[in-house]
Amino acid sequence: MATSPPGSSAGSGQQGAHRGAPHPSPRHPRLDPLADRYAARTHGMKSSEIRALFSVVSRPEVVSLAGGMPAVTALPLDAVGSMIGDLVSGMGAQTLQYGSGQGDPRLRERICDVMALEGIHDASASEVVVTVGSQQGLDLVTRVFVDPGDVILAEAPSYVGALGVFQSAEARVRHVAMDDDGLIPEALEEALLDCRAAGDRVKFLYTVPNFHNPAGVTLTEPRREAIIALAEKYDLLVIEDNPYGLLGFEHEPLRALRARNSERVIYLGSFSKTFSPGLRVGWVLAPLAVREKLVLATEAQVLCPPSLTQYAVARYLDTQPWREQIKIFTELYRERRDACLESLEALMPAGTTWTRPDGGFYVWLKLPHGLDAKLMQPRAVNALVAYVPGIGFYADGSGQEYMRLSYCYPEPDQIREGVRRLARVIEAELDLHSTFDAVDTGTFRAVRPDADGRFSGSGTIVGPANSNAYEDGR
Amino acid sequence: MATSPPGSSAGSGQQGAHRGAPHPSPRHPRLDPLADRYAARTHGMKSSEIRALFSVVSRPEVVSLAGGMPAVTALPLDAVGSMIGDLVSGMGAQTLQYGSGQGDPRLRERICDVMALEGIHDASASEVVVTVGSQQGLDLVTRVFVDPGDVILAEAPSYVGALGVFQSAEARVRHVAMDDDGLIPEALEEALLDCRAAGDRVKFLYTVPNFHNPAGVTLTEPRREAIIALAEKYDLLVIEDNPYGLLGFEHEPLRALRARNSERVIYLGSFSKTFSPGLRVGWVLAPLAVREKLVLATEAQVLCPPSLTQYAVARYLDTQPWREQIKIFTELYRERRDACLESLEALMPAGTTWTRPDGGFYVWLKLPHGLDAKLMQPRAVNALVAYVPGIGFYADGSGQEYMRLSYCYPEPDQIREGVRRLARVIEAELDLHSTFDAVDTGTFRAVRPDADGRFSGSGTIVGPANSNAYEDGR
Ligand SMILES: Cc1ncc(COP(=O)(O)O)c(C=O)c1O
Ligand SMILES: Cc1ncc(COP(=O)(O)O)c(C=O)c1O
Repeated sequence: MATSPPGSSAGSGQQGAHRGAPHPSPRHPRLDPLADRYAARTHGMKSSEIRALFSVVSRPEVVSLAGGMPAVTALPLDAVGSMIGDLVSGMGAQTLQYGSGQGDPRLRERICDVMALEGIHDASASEVVVTVGSQQGLDLVTRVFVDPGDVILAEAPSYVGALGVFQSAEARVRHVAMDDDGLIPEALEEALLDCRAAGDRVKFLYTVPNFHNPAGVTLTEPRREAIIALAEKYDLLVIEDNPYGLLGFEHEPLRALRARNSERVIYLGSFSKTFSPGLRVGWVLAPLAVREKLVLATEAQVLCPPSLTQYAVARYLDTQPWREQIKIFTELYRERRDACLESLEALMPAGTTWTRPDGGFYVWLKLPHGLDAKLMQPRAVNALVAYVPGIGFYADGSGQEYMRLSYCYPEPDQIREGVRRLARVIEAELDLHSTFDAVDTGTFRAVRPDADGRFSGSGTIVGPANSNAYEDGR
Repeated sequence: MATSPPGSSAGSGQQGAHRGAPHPSPRHPRLDPLADRYAARTHGMKSSEIRALFSVVSRPEVVSLAGGMPAVTALPLDAVGSMIGDLVSGMGAQTLQYGSGQGDPRLRERICDVMALEGIHDASASEVVVTVGSQQGLDLVTRVFVDPGDVILAEAPSYVGALGVFQSAEARVRHVAMDDDGLIPEALEEALLDCRAAGDRVKFLYTVPNFHNPAGVTLTEPRREAIIALAEKYDLLVIEDNPYGLLGFEHEPLRALRARNSERVIYLGSFSKTFSPGLRVGWVLAPLAVREKLVLATEAQVLCPPSLTQYAVARYLDTQPWREQIKIFTELYRERRDACLESLEALMPAGTTWTRPDGGFYVWLKLPHGLDAKLMQPRAVNALVAYVPGIGFYADGSGQEYMRLSYCYPEPDQIREGVRRLARVIEAELDLHSTFDAVDTGTFRAVRPDADGRFSGSGTIVGPANSNAYEDGR
């Protein structure tokens, strides 16, 4: 059975053709008899237009630089298999039974050990809530804090899955500019002042400080300090989403934002990228009062996370060489990152720019001026290469000139072949558009304040109704 | 490590003392600095007042008739363990990887086979969405249909976990009376007319037709027809929640509501009671247009259900004698039900009445007039027996005289001992209250229209603000 990229909704491909409609309608021609009774929040839920392409993308001849799937086959599958088998045979009364809503206490202890690697030494297991992936963690935090119409600050671009959560909470998203050094503190302060002036309630800042999805950049040390200082100054709650923090290629992990402030930072973690996403084990670290509400929210949502997968992770951390395994993963991703960057360097036409990640899964690529990654996508798939168009990562419909390339899953040779195909598609596109004279030299780096000292492209607050978010693109 | 009843939040027991406050506050005396920024939906989220008792209840000397935990140790744990171990060793690339939001196609096929046992023969795998337990299924359906203030019809009493979902959706719940034959169609019609007259929008009826939690009763065949007819007449959407349908002691499963109408009935299923709750695998069967929205909602909530647990269930259905296993479970539960009913019969003081389930996990007991199950609870725990007070199963704070007894988990001897202790507590309570003269002969059966032909106790619509729901009690 083919594995499908997350969110690709394999098996429902026949719905693809109807995805553009505001109320996706079933295949049979009758109108949806329930059309008038859906909740308001569903109106903003749009299925990805690239989903229809996924049946194509999963053909073996296509090189997919689209999905964010970790290289799980690099795990010692036999050892993990017998470990999990033993858990069921020997501890079935626990692993097959309901557990607590907050999650297995033993696992929560071990999660504190994991967080210590990023400088969080004061976390206690009682402040941890185990979630069904960090996706559920983000959904719970959003449920607990956000009423319809509330403002959330989020990097431009932002993780598509987060925008999906915010949209289904009917929040308004205000993007904050970032550059190669991550979120720009001055842009954050500007956003906070704007919101204050407009009387808008900012519920929190959502940020991915390490090896950003999709931008591939990492928040520098001085900026971490600056952002914490702004959180203090403006009484700002920060949601630190950190699934990739331990996957750095060049240096030790930077100290988490949460390590610098335990009251204003809620931390989201995940075992999806350091162990296995198929187990769906993530967590939230939050002050006790918030933790309390998160537990109530998760009980109403799923009763409790799966016991088996929690025991599997706890046992894995207890008995397997997980730190060494993370090294194996990072070596593998570093090699793939190198293959990706080297071939981009060698093959991309002038005017194409991209970020240079030193960890994680993603390169963020900007097309030459005038090109549109989404319009180009069918031609790329025709040329047997796939990527995720940038617009999915913006709540305001911008980002047309960007795309995300994931180097985590394909082998280096495939990556090189994929980039080669992509370069040809871009060249053909440039020919087609006859835009040779309009090559733009702006890079992602070049996010600079305008003459008034303001950061362009991050000023509008985008409500759920006119939002263009929720493209696939983990 | 002790297994804790679902929702018992083991490991956070130290919070218990503060549970009564509208905003549960952390132990340290400082005020919650975030208190002013929670979402409106959190105000109705109340933690269970009986949670604090669970640390007591889980002491081995206490007979707990409180939890709804299935007897998972009756499974062939070695066979299931090696089956799951093999899945990871042999298919790690799939079982440890992200999957599709809708769920594994192979599992969805097998789910259709399971539903055929209850007369649903027209379901297709494309209409099935796999969920993290049927709890998540109910949460997704509620998210897709319910705006704050919308009315949901639900049996009086109703499954506490459903009331928790409705409360966190800020819905208003209107209870509909039931008796030993299940939901009363005339009471349903009355509720629909009342809502129509009041201009209230009824989003759906939530019903548990088989071996009801907590009432232990089953909707009869003629009432099934009557309710489907009312759904047609009043354009009513019905949510059929059916985790216990295959656990009947006396006869073949009754035909599901969904088998009678595929357009107005959304069906929720679960493997929690027929296989294992620790895997958290449930599903929703819904018309394609709804299914489409459910997939978007689940992607925003958890990305996808765990792959490993889905593969485990599919492989279990493919390779293990699951129908025979269900027989083993029902034999075991029947024996426990008998132990429970026989000792109730032998030991309960006059004026105590109870339902006689012919399947599932629960007996619904009514105390002699004047007694309050919740007030009595600390004394019961002192006497080393635990149950769930009835008020948790009503959104309107009624049900004081009821309690739920679960016979699914303890051995028959323990059940007999538990009932013996409970009988003594009730007798002592009667002494204490000197209410020997006020013994009430009303039973649960005796829900009858009043002189005006109206059903008492089901007329008020209860909003989230004054709701008393979300007691523990699965
Ligand atoms: C930034 C970010 N946050 C959260 C997630 C969700 O991860 P999971 O739910 O698998 O833990 C992802 C997955 O790609 C991600 O990139
Ligand atoms: C009526 C009812 N619905 C739903 C559930 C939730 O079950 P699951 O474990 O599938 O989430 C329960 C659990 O006890 C139940 O009794």
